[in-house]
This record gives sequence, structure tokens and C-alpha cells, in this order.
Amino acid sequence: MYDGYLSLLGVVFVRGIAIVGCGMTRFGQLEDKSLTDLMVESSLMAISDANASESDFDAVYVGNMFSGEFNRMTGIASVLVDRLNLLPAAADKIENGPASGGSAIKEGFQAIASGVSNLVLVVGVEKMTSIPNPKVSSSVATLTHPTAEYKYGVTLPSLGGLLAQLYLKKYNVKRELLSLVAVKNHKNGAHNPYAHFQKEITLEKALASPVIADPLRLFDVCPVSDGAASLVLCAADKAKEYTDTPIYIKGFGQATDIQMVAEREDPTVLEALREAARKAYSMAKLEPQDIDFAELHDAFTILEIVQSEDVGFFKKGEGAKAVEEGKTWLDGELPINPSGGLKARGHPLGATGVAQAVEITWQLRGEAGKRQVPGCETGLSVNFGGFGNNIVVHIFQR
Amino acid sequence: MYDGYLSLLGVVFVRGIAIVGCGMTRFGQLEDKSLTDLMVESSLMAISDANASESDFDAVYVGNMFSGEFNRMTGIASVLVDRLNLLPAAADKIENGPASGGSAIKEGFQAIASGVSNLVLVVGVEKMTSIPNPKVSSSVATLTHPTAEYKYGVTLPSLGGLLAQLYLKKYNVKRELLSLVAVKNHKNGAHNPYAHFQKEITLEKALASPVIADPLRLFDVCPVSDGAASLVLCAADKAKEYTDTPIYIKGFGQATDIQMVAEREDPTVLEALREAARKAYSMAKLEPQDIDFAELHDAFTILEIVQSEDVGFFKKGEGAKAVEEGKTWLDGELPINPSGGLKARGHPLGATGVAQAVEITWQLRGEAGKRQVPGCETGLSVNFGGFGNNIVVHIFQR
Repeated sequence: MYDGYLSLLGVVFVRGIAIVGCGMTRFGQLEDKSLTDLMVESSLMAISDANASESDFDAVYVGNMFSGEFNRMTGIASVLVDRLNLLPAAADKIENGPASGGSAIKEGFQAIASGVSNLVLVVGVEKMTSIPNPKVSSSVATLTHPTAEYKYGVTLPSLGGLLAQLYLKKYNVKRELLSLVAVKNHKNGAHNPYAHFQKEITLEKALASPVIADPLRLFDVCPVSDGAASLVLCAADKAKEYTDTPIYIKGFGQATDIQMVAEREDPTVLEALREAARKAYSMAKLEPQDIDFAELHDAFTILEIVQSEDVGFFKKGEGAKAVEEGKTWLDGELPINPSGGLKARGHPLGATGVAQAVEITWQLRGEAGKRQVPGCETGLSVNFGGFGNNIVVHIFQR
Repeated sequence: MYDGYLSLLGVVFVRGIAIVGCGMTRFGQLEDKSLTDLMVESSLMAISDANASESDFDAVYVGNMFSGEFNRMTGIASVLVDRLNLLPAAADKIENGPASGGSAIKEGFQAIASGVSNLVLVVGVEKMTSIPNPKVSSSVATLTHPTAEYKYGVTLPSLGGLLAQLYLKKYNVKRELLSLVAVKNHKNGAHNPYAHFQKEITLEKALASPVIADPLRLFDVCPVSDGAASLVLCAADKAKEYTDTPIYIKGFGQATDIQMVAEREDPTVLEALREAARKAYSMAKLEPQDIDFAELHDAFTILEIVQSEDVGFFKKGEGAKAVEEGKTWLDGELPINPSGGLKARGHPLGATGVAQAVEITWQLRGEAGKRQVPGCETGLSVNFGGFGNNIVVHIFQR
């Protein structure tokens, strides 16, 4: 049970925060839906789920990266409040690369915890499959170091490949274990009606897929997807006005690291994640062993393994072994990415952090159907911005 | 003096917020400085002004519209913390059209008021003069209603022209008074070493300038500028650790309105401003007559007049008369835009809201030199997003 108040920095928060409604579109190639359509669809689902009325909302946060570049729209939070008639609610877009959704949840948390807002809608959205792929890849690359990486043509998959090479060698890990992450996440995604890919793959198929950035192959890399996800947040002490099954945000942490990957002392260690997790555990008064399951940011299979270590679940170098031993599978002791993760659910950049929270909410309510983690009480999300230099962690509890 | 705590929605905030450092670049055509250079320059000035050390910062917010479209950079808040070595501070970009800076200040306020952060750097920045003008105009137009305005080729000056036509006719106001706003703001800007334009203009010159969108002429329209502005915010009870002259954010309000201008019942009334101002006055426990001077968002001269009414300074239809009677000039009873405003200081979109707060801080400290408003104690800013459909008001006091 939720015990009322949270604290950090020696300051007791005015009040805790609860999720009282959530919704998402199916992720995938959604050709007939505009960016606005996506935001509206997931938000109406969340507002209805919360039994909230339009006039109750004080603020709206939209996590998104590329509305300007890909959809020729700015001020998209203003578009949403207009379309949903949430006027005169405050409205802002939050951009933190692929962690824009996680950052948007954080801003919603702070809006309520500060006492400024009572009821907040948080949305993550990206509409990108209609954009020619060279433009998608080169736009995503703009989140790398502007003068030390981007200008030399670094892409995200290339950084992922370098990280995988370094990791496999340093910790003496078999390359096959990367593909096993994809097999696991596709197996989970097959049970998720909101996933971009809803079918299982075999290890043989993953191992035989084309090389993208050695040693990463096609099935080690998440797809480009369209989609949106929404949450309704309110003060914990008012949550029962909206739902019988509030899910509490017990803590969060956000931290940054040296942007240029080659400048980091050990690029196989995600220092930003370690610090963000430390803050989140501290705020929640919980430890890694209290977490029942997690949604990690597996934009590349190697990232799930590395994150599962730096968030405190496994010793450094032992994340891959946990996959091999079945620990992180749906029936294991610590399921990771029951939703299918970015690999199978898909990765509409700004939507991902919010979709992670939606999945965790469904899991904690026991509404996750065939992919339900039995009896779970506490879930954690890792949303990965930049190439690991800006990471947001949230801890949720029923 | 600051009385400790603020309240809203019946909830007492954990703590109030103070500005303990500020800085800005000169605004203008800054060809030899990158977007990063601009952020770094204003931020180092603010950090030095606050006598803060890098390791003190918990969070960074950057207000910006077009880093992706114009500068091929995303995650620019992460870039800044890396360059300034504020690691591992949390970092996010906030986009709310031309009110991105105002929204960034609000997020900084909430980060501290919630108890999550102690010391926050807020930055506004835009680098746009190097972009060919057709791209600037068409990009700015992406903040209009996507299917009811943007797709038909609406631009911001065209909406400004229509508003001016409607206003002049409805309230029987002489067109010359629009130009008088420009004359006043150029006169103020001539004393501002950070202004894009530091020279006075004559009424005759303004009236003879080329028509941009009838009845708006060249001197009724703000320039395209590069620039950045930064603030250091902290909890009010810790402000004296950083400065002897803290300036307090006594209140703020943000509100949205119907996006499509033609759908509003009376387009000469800025309902979003009325609501945002109501919230800000309520939080600050102040009224319009308590405000000594204001920085309004005069992207077009007509906007200063309309805002001066809807923020509560003058009756509807009498804002222009106040300019004619000298009330809003530097030596008048309620000076508006002592900085020179957007018209003369310039308008690097995301930077403007933060620059308004920097000017007000300097004024309240008595550091504004030849443009000082004598003996001022309370200042107000209006930052205008979209075409008036998302407005942020802040009230500051020494």
C-alpha cells in the first residue's frame, strides 16, 4: 500500500502521485492516422479509463522528438488540448531524445507534487514510418555529440554495434545471447495486442538475419514505428475519486553522462543509468531486489543486457547469463520486457517512455492477459535518451 | 519582502522560488556563434552571477523551438550539461512555440517547488538568422492550426495583420498608434546593450516603412534574431547562499485557448492571457495595479496593445490610448518593455521568455542602467505561444 508522502533532498513532497488512467494505440506502421489522431486516440482511452472529465485537467505534457522535422507541426501539446477540449489546461512538449516520454512523465509528476496541478495528462507520440528511411536515420543521429560524433557520420546502430563488440569481448559473452534477447521479447510481444510485431521468431532466424552494424543483426535492432501512449496522473490522495486500482509512481530518477561515447571511462557502463536508478530507489525507499519486473529500453538487444546490470538487477557482465538461464523470461524470476520491449512492441521514439508506464500499469493491475507477470507488485522502467547520456528511471507500485 | 510560501489549488507549496543568477548574450545576427556557443555564453554568465558551482545543479531546462529543423541538433539540454560539466544533472528541452522560454521557467519552478531539485539552470535559445528566410517563415507557421490554418498557407504576420485590422476598426483606434509602440520600444532598446537594434526610430520612418501584412508595416514586426538567456533558480529559503539580491518568482500562470483564430468568439480578446494572468495574480496574491512595469510579447506592435489590456492593465480598447498618453513609456506610470521588447531587443523564439525574466531581474535589482524603471518592486512578463493560444505569465518581486 501507498504510505502517503515521498521525500528527496531532505524535503518532503507535498503529495505523492498516482496513475489513474492509461491508454495507447497499437504501435506499427499506421499509415491512415496523423500525429494528432495518434495523440487523440491514446488520450481518449486514458481519459475514459480514468473516468475524468475534460474540465478536470490542469496540464498536459507531450513527449515527442520530431513533430517539427517529420510532421511539420510545433506546439503539438496546444494542438492536443484544443482537439480534446481540455482548454484552458497548460500544455507543453518535452524533448529528451528517445527518453522524451520518460521526461514527460517526470514533468507531470513535478507539476502535481509541487501543488501547481491536480490532474495531468501525459502523452508520448511519434509518427515516423511515413518518412523515408535515410531521413529517419540521419535525424535520429542528431542526438549524438554535435561536433565529435554527428559531424563524422555516426549513427545510432553504429554506436550500438561498437558497444556490443566491446561488451562481448570484455565479458567473454557469446554473440548468440544477443539474439536470445530478441527471441524472448518477440515471444512476449506475440501476446501483446498493442505490439508492432506480434509473432515469435526462432534463434536460427535471428542469427541468420542480415548484419546491420557488426555484431548487431536485423533482429537485434528495434523497428521504426508510429504510435502514442497516454497516462492520467493525479495526487495520490485523490486517486480513489477516479479509479479503484490506482498505481503509484513511487520514485523516479534522471541523470546525464558524458555525451561522447568514446570519452567515457568505460563505455560498457551506463553511469547515467546507475545514477538515475540510485535516485529512483532512494525516492521510493526500495532496492533492486524489490523489483518484480521491468520494462527496459532495448533499442538494441545489447542495451537490454547492459541496462539489466547497471539498474542493479545483475552483476556487471552477468546480464547475458540471466537471459540464457531464463531469469528474464516471462516465467523467470525477474521478467524483462513482458510487453515485447522496443524490439517487438516497437519504438515510436517519444511514445516509448509512456508506453513502458502503460504496460507496467496494466501489469500491476493484473490486466496484461497472456503476458501477465503473476502476482507482481512493483515494476521499473528505463527510458534511454541520447546514446545513454540522459536516462530516466521510474518505479511503480500497486 | 518574500513571505515564505506560495499556495494554489488549496495546496501549500513546499517552498518558494528565487532567481539568484542571470545572463544573456547580445541578441542579433550572431554568425560566428553556434547554438551551443549561445547556450554556454548566457549560462556561464548566469552561473557566475549566482556564484554557483557546477556540482550544485540538479536540473537543466532549455526552452527552444527549432534546434532540430534549423541546427540539426536534438537533446540540446544534454549537450549543454555535457559542455558545462553540470553532469549528472537532469536535462530536458521544453517546446511551447515562442513561449518555450516561459514554459521552461515554469518547469524549473515546479522542479524546485516539488522538492525534487534544489538548484536549476533555465535557458532559452534560438539560432535562426543563418536559415534562409522562406524556411524560417514556413517553419514558424507550423505552430498554427495544422488542418485549418497551416495547410492554407497562413503565416504569423498574416494573422497579426488580421488582428490589427479587426482591433483598429472595433475600437476606433488610429493606425499611427501601432507605430508609436515601435518608436517607444526602439527608444528603450537604444539603452539596452543586449538589444538587437540599439537605435531610435522616428514615427515618420515607421509609418513610411514597407507594408508586411496590412496594416502592419516593417517596423510593426519583430526581427529574426539569434540569442540565448539563462537563469539560475533555487528554493527561496536558500537564495541568500548565492546572492544578496534574490528576485522572487511570486506567481505564474499558463493557459490555452482555441487554436484556430477564426473560431474564437472575439479574436481581439486573448482569453488564454486573461486566464494565465488570473492564475498568476492569484498565486502571487497581487493585482494588476500592483505591477510596476512589464515585459510583453510584442512580436507585432498590435500584440503589445492587446496584451496590455487582457493582462489587466487597461480597459479593453484603451491600450493604444495608454501608449499615446505616455503611460507605457519608460517615464510613464507603467513602463512596458523597458528592454526594447521583441521589437528592438529581438526575438530568438525560445530565448524570449527567459530574456524577459532576465530583464525584469536586472530592473528589480536596479541594474538596468539608462533604461532603469526607477524604484520598481514588482514586474510581470507575458510570453505568447502559438498565435495567442498558449500563454505564460510570470510575476517577479524583489
